[in-house]
Amino acid sequence: MPFTSSAETSPQTVNRLSLYLRCLRQLRELHIQKVSSQELARRFDLSATQIRKDLAQFGEFGIRGVGYDVAQLIDHLRSLLGLDRRHKVVIVGIGNLGLALAQYPGFNSTSFQVVAGVDIDHDKVGRKAGAFTIQHAEELAAVVRSSGAEIGVLTVPEAAAQENYDGLVQAGVRAVLNFTRARIRTVPEVPLKEVDLRIYLEETAFFLRR
Amino acid sequence: MPFTSSAETSPQTVNRLSLYLRCLRQLRELHIQKVSSQELARRFDLSATQIRKDLAQFGEFGIRGVGYDVAQLIDHLRSLLGLDRRHKVVIVGIGNLGLALAQYPGFNSTSFQVVAGVDIDHDKVGRKAGAFTIQHAEELAAVVRSSGAEIGVLTVPEAAAQENYDGLVQAGVRAVLNFTRARIRTVPEVPLKEVDLRIYLEETAFFLRR
Repeated sequence: MPFTSSAETSPQTVNRLSLYLRCLRQLRELHIQKVSSQELARRFDLSATQIRKDLAQFGEFGIRGVGYDVAQLIDHLRSLLGLDRRHKVVIVGIGNLGLALAQYPGFNSTSFQVVAGVDIDHDKVGRKAGAFTIQHAEELAAVVRSSGAEIGVLTVPEAAAQENYDGLVQAGVRAVLNFTRARIRTVPEVPLKEVDLRIYLEETAFFLRR
Repeated sequence: MPFTSSAETSPQTVNRLSLYLRCLRQLRELHIQKVSSQELARRFDLSATQIRKDLAQFGEFGIRGVGYDVAQLIDHLRSLLGLDRRHKVVIVGIGNLGLALAQYPGFNSTSFQVVAGVDIDHDKVGRKAGAFTIQHAEELAAVVRSSGAEIGVLTVPEAAAQENYDGLVQAGVRAVLNFTRARIRTVPEVPLKEVDLRIYLEETAFFLRR
């Protein structure tokens, strides 16, 4: 049972698993087949202890003295993160950001597909965005049901974020990605992931210090 | 000299410093004034050893047995990350994503301001986007010079990413944020930060495993 789900897995651990996956994909592109936790840590400036601890939560992946098989660990992490099947996504709020995400390659890949989008603006209803036709926000519950969307993406104005999270919960999505700055009161059954694009500028600003 | 810049500071360390800053801001909102590395690690599922190691690179912040002063460490990290002054940003490619970022609150804050944007589409030139008027991509060098933009944001089609990175380098920006999937050949003087929004969906997908 290598893939036991743990209720205790924290968002930071998930964040790191996703990071390890990206690092391993880079190694695969370099045709590197085996990697130790020390080597992985050294190359990507991570903690070898943390890598071993994070991975050990989900079973034994590495072989002592040999390390991890890169391709195998990629598969394990994909499975662990639930990326071995395609998740359907609904976008709530088809402004510039909503439109951009509807067409964003990473949101329309082997693991994800934006299947629907809603907006309160009647003028937008019926227009194409990415692979779907925009529907009215009042139809959200029916849209989620008929599209099978599991993940909701909030790209509404900040003031409308809470009611639309609540609407997504009632409509039956299982997780929500919040691109607004709103602090949303959540229910435990529908976890919310915050997206703050400012962090990319913050990390860039560091390089301007010289 | 607590803020010695290190040429050895890796992107992952910068990433973690930015993460610590976000954690500390949360503590400040909870009116928590002191925190130890252990407590910070426990609350946000980080490694206390890593926190101490990361911060020790830049001087001594904590007091043994007492921990860190939250407000002081926030100030230190802001200074360390170069967030104690405002950085000007130019957006290259004013499609849906470019327009969204032009108006994005986190890109127009005390530390950042989108001051200019260019596009190759003559129909867009002269239109307002966020706080600026769109100019033609051919004017990039003049736009960067007159606006004082230090950070370039690439929101062009993937195929146009390399030439626009090169254009930003020639125009004199000091760092670039890449929202495209293109693998860009960079020069050491102008570091490139990759943005992959797919990671947010990946981290969300984990919660759908139950």
